[in-house]
Amino acid sequence: MRLLITNDDGVHAKGIHALCKELEKYHDIIIVAPDDQRSATSHSITIAKPLIVKEVELPDIKSKAYSVSGTPADCVRVATDQIIKDKVDMVVSGINIGYNLGTDILYSGTVSAAVEATLCSVPAIAVSTESSAEDYVYENAAKYIKKVIEVAVSNKLHEDIVLNVNVPPIKDEDIKGIKVCKIGKLQFHHYYKETGKEQENLVYKLEGERVVNHVEETDSYYVDNGYVTVTPLHYDLTNFNILKDVGKWF
Amino acid sequence: MRLLITNDDGVHAKGIHALCKELEKYHDIIIVAPDDQRSATSHSITIAKPLIVKEVELPDIKSKAYSVSGTPADCVRVATDQIIKDKVDMVVSGINIGYNLGTDILYSGTVSAAVEATLCSVPAIAVSTESSAEDYVYENAAKYIKKVIEVAVSNKLHEDIVLNVNVPPIKDEDIKGIKVCKIGKLQFHHYYKETGKEQENLVYKLEGERVVNHVEETDSYYVDNGYVTVTPLHYDLTNFNILKDVGKWF
Repeated sequence: MRLLITNDDGVHAKGIHALCKELEKYHDIIIVAPDDQRSATSHSITIAKPLIVKEVELPDIKSKAYSVSGTPADCVRVATDQIIKDKVDMVVSGINIGYNLGTDILYSGTVSAAVEATLCSVPAIAVSTESSAEDYVYENAAKYIKKVIEVAVSNKLHEDIVLNVNVPPIKDEDIKGIKVCKIGKLQFHHYYKETGKEQENLVYKLEGERVVNHVEETDSYYVDNGYVTVTPLHYDLTNFNILKDVGKWF
Repeated sequence: MRLLITNDDGVHAKGIHALCKELEKYHDIIIVAPDDQRSATSHSITIAKPLIVKEVELPDIKSKAYSVSGTPADCVRVATDQIIKDKVDMVVSGINIGYNLGTDILYSGTVSAAVEATLCSVPAIAVSTESSAEDYVYENAAKYIKKVIEVAVSNKLHEDIVLNVNVPPIKDEDIKGIKVCKIGKLQFHHYYKETGKEQENLVYKLEGERVVNHVEETDSYYVDNGYVTVTPLHYDLTNFNILKDVGKWF
């Protein structure tokens, strides 16, 4: 298969290297990723500035790689429209350095790149793990993605489906299995701290920590219990559960 | 009620002025909006830089107004966490200069600010109209929002619901009514044009136009047929339709 690999940590991040190194053993890979860190850029796209696309060499990676002066969603768009002339069979976004769990995925550039792929009619997988200094954490996550791709292909992963995968940062033998589940609640409790004044203006800094906010049978619950989680996502934000009710209001 | 008003076109945009001017007749308003244009920033948040919050005076507006050196989602977060000490009853985001229809709402800072409000347990309304030089277009959209707020309150709009409203840029007497409906397909056909080379790098510029891509009974279909559209949105990206099926894959 021809796979486009992207991320939001930038083309030089160790997560995307580990992913490419594993997947280029089995597939044709093209990396098109941001030129720098783009965490928390969500589904933003660059509309007012041009995108600069540069071929880059990555150590120990055989596949072609390009950096883009834009967001993860920009990477998917310019890659499928211009850089890659042939059909892309799947987009894999990651490995993100930090989980993408619960409603926090709304902020994620990694997940948004995968959602953008489905808007371009390409099925996609987003993959994240907890930040770690250990290489085996990323190598292990990459091996799980090889497996998830095989399963997805043998089940004909439809072009409008994103699978959001999180892998716990533990040794392979300690992983209890794969759980397909819904997303949970907000993971990061964020708050602002007033850090001073600049002339008349107030200055705030964002602080926060991950909270254990478990709802059973959700992604954060399972990942904290040693499972790899797989959540199918979609891109239609309509709240169909209440569409009829709201229809009676007007 | 105490309403927080924000947008993605920036605190000095004419859409937010028209909205505030209408709603401050009936409600307590605080404006907290980006200091400049932030279109297409989606649900991105500022994590690495501090946010600078500045009180600003807006011509013909009595309500307090603040500019923020961040995204629309940042505005909602810092406003509810720090700037506004009392409970906010509702967030209204807009009036966006340009429709927010179909799956294009994924890119929208205006819609994302409203979604962020619901993550902060505040019900929210996003409102957009087609870009227009005519003041009455924005004044008319503001009057519809006054009405939508009344209806939402009398039906106890729940804290986890966003209503996405689009108002066509036509005279009030030509508007056929209000339709509650699902979102449609992609509205903008985007493509990249190679505009030259900088040293060894390729440079691409985004171009695009709105395409008529109507699916019946969707927001774009109705708005192009002279209706104000209201779509309830949610923030759980889990694809529940296929969750069980994917569960059988692994």
